[in-house]
Amino acid sequence: MSIALPVSQEFTGVAARETRDRVLARVERRIHEFLAEERRSWAALNADSAELIDCVSRMVGSGGKRLRPAFCVAGYLAGGGDPEAQVVVDVAAALELLHTFALLHDDVMDDSGLRRNEPTAHVLHSTLHEERDWRGEPRRYGESVAVLAGDLALVYAERLLVDCPPHARRIWGELCTELMIGQFLDVRAAARFVPDPELSSWIALFKSGRYTVYRPLAMGAELAGAQELRPAFERYGLALGEAFQLRDDLLDAFGSSDVIGKPAQLDFKQHKMTLLMSIALRHEAEVRELVGDDLSGADPERLHEVLIRTGVRDRVEEVVAERIETARAAVRGALDPDWAAELHTMARQAAYRDK
Amino acid sequence: MSIALPVSQEFTGVAARETRDRVLARVERRIHEFLAEERRSWAALNADSAELIDCVSRMVGSGGKRLRPAFCVAGYLAGGGDPEAQVVVDVAAALELLHTFALLHDDVMDDSGLRRNEPTAHVLHSTLHEERDWRGEPRRYGESVAVLAGDLALVYAERLLVDCPPHARRIWGELCTELMIGQFLDVRAAARFVPDPELSSWIALFKSGRYTVYRPLAMGAELAGAQELRPAFERYGLALGEAFQLRDDLLDAFGSSDVIGKPAQLDFKQHKMTLLMSIALRHEAEVRELVGDDLSGADPERLHEVLIRTGVRDRVEEVVAERIETARAAVRGALDPDWAAELHTMARQAAYRDK
Repeated sequence: MSIALPVSQEFTGVAARETRDRVLARVERRIHEFLAEERRSWAALNADSAELIDCVSRMVGSGGKRLRPAFCVAGYLAGGGDPEAQVVVDVAAALELLHTFALLHDDVMDDSGLRRNEPTAHVLHSTLHEERDWRGEPRRYGESVAVLAGDLALVYAERLLVDCPPHARRIWGELCTELMIGQFLDVRAAARFVPDPELSSWIALFKSGRYTVYRPLAMGAELAGAQELRPAFERYGLALGEAFQLRDDLLDAFGSSDVIGKPAQLDFKQHKMTLLMSIALRHEAEVRELVGDDLSGADPERLHEVLIRTGVRDRVEEVVAERIETARAAVRGALDPDWAAELHTMARQAAYRDK
Repeated sequence: MSIALPVSQEFTGVAARETRDRVLARVERRIHEFLAEERRSWAALNADSAELIDCVSRMVGSGGKRLRPAFCVAGYLAGGGDPEAQVVVDVAAALELLHTFALLHDDVMDDSGLRRNEPTAHVLHSTLHEERDWRGEPRRYGESVAVLAGDLALVYAERLLVDCPPHARRIWGELCTELMIGQFLDVRAAARFVPDPELSSWIALFKSGRYTVYRPLAMGAELAGAQELRPAFERYGLALGEAFQLRDDLLDAFGSSDVIGKPAQLDFKQHKMTLLMSIALRHEAEVRELVGDDLSGADPERLHEVLIRTGVRDRVEEVVAERIETARAAVRGALDPDWAAELHTMARQAAYRDK
């Protein structure tokens, strides 16, 4: 009698993905129940306080990709963690709340009006301030509310970690420190405005490779007691981080604002030294001539055309593909084949997303 | 042969205070060593990143009263905690970093130019932005740096808690949540600008009584395993919180800006519904007439004179004295007499401070 092999032994990652998705569904419930309970208890004490909690819930509920929880849970399960345990659910939920914090504060710092096709928190609350004919400056009020909502999201993240063991919490501390300092260096470089491709790449990789991929994977592995996976996860994270960041830059440069849910060509308009631009400057004299010493000569339309015509866009797509292969190689051998296959799928999904 | 009684048995609190001060000296060292080590390791990676850490260090080093660490250590020692343990030092240091976070963000929300006689972080960095002739809006840059420095201080607080046990960490989570929501309600009430003495008192007591006094005491007691002290600490904290807040209001109303290190009469100028004003409005028809329905008729000089002449100032001083007695009674009997005496001294120092 012949028996079909279980799916997991075909190394397609399907069984791995199903287990991961069940844990991620619990993460989603954990976040929503936590926020609903907070809202309930605070609204009973003071009705107005719900306004701040709603800022957090609106951002969480606006359809993020949940990449950080997904990498955390994947790192945990790949490391042999028990899929029924609660701690990984809490830590993954905390990572999503941390990201909520980061988005709320980033939108103020970038003065973004739109996020995931909705008005951002500071814009919404400065509009409310005007409509209600309140005192003081609408801008300061709206930005204060958004900053406080971000602060509250960070506190919620920490509260979700209440039972997280110290060794995993140390990684969390490093992740958060890198996030704040990376963001500061980014804001500072944008203001300083001296194109420095080296520094820009370093910041971009720091922010995406470590914050989005490597640290979440490492926290998962740590929770599973599989510290030995960290070097492989670091190589995977840094390679995928670069692919992820390049996709971000490509979407900004060539995407449409309807699909990505925020204004397109913003990096060009803000003369931002992206990873894409640093590659373009290194390889194409025509781009260097066009943008000048401080990127300020770059008319967005013109630059767009040159990047396509000179083949920079295609070259960047090649780099993305090559980085995905590096990421794949990093985990092949280190993980069981089913998880190696699933992490390859996740890398492709992150690097070939359309928003 | 007669032997002098040890000082502690005279119930003056001197021995208690000496023990507490030794622990607090270790808290000071812990903060400074932590920040110095952070600066060293980040500066080695990227020199510019030190600028952000310096914002945190400057605020910490600018001479705060260290009230929250003092209450935390007092609650711990009064609960019988081991003075040689490390965890109380870490938690007290975390409370000071949390306060650093709160001050950095508050200064942006209030647009305060001066704190402890120094330019505030957002003012300093928007000035640097202008001097360096950088791109973009100096205000947005300065405020972004101050917000990120606050975020970093909050992360540092959390990192100091890495070995804090879950039960004490739950109090920390409540404290932080109350801080964010209390600040939101305060910002909202100031913008809404409908005098609501009930709400204003509630917010003020929430912020000072719980954040500054009760929660730090409770965390200390929890670390010492003396949960039974919490009800007494709550009564003490709420009474002292009111006295503390009234002193804040009196210093703002009648102090000089040289001594308090920030602009004086700011509450009047911003038509803020302070605890002092809510008492004044309740008791004095002349104040009600002067300020009108929305406090906007209150000329600061005139109001100042009326508050003294009608005896409101004296009445508030009586409330302060009465609240200190309530605080004293709350801990007498619940604590050993030496610690009850010391907490009384601490209450008097907080309520009769001149800055």
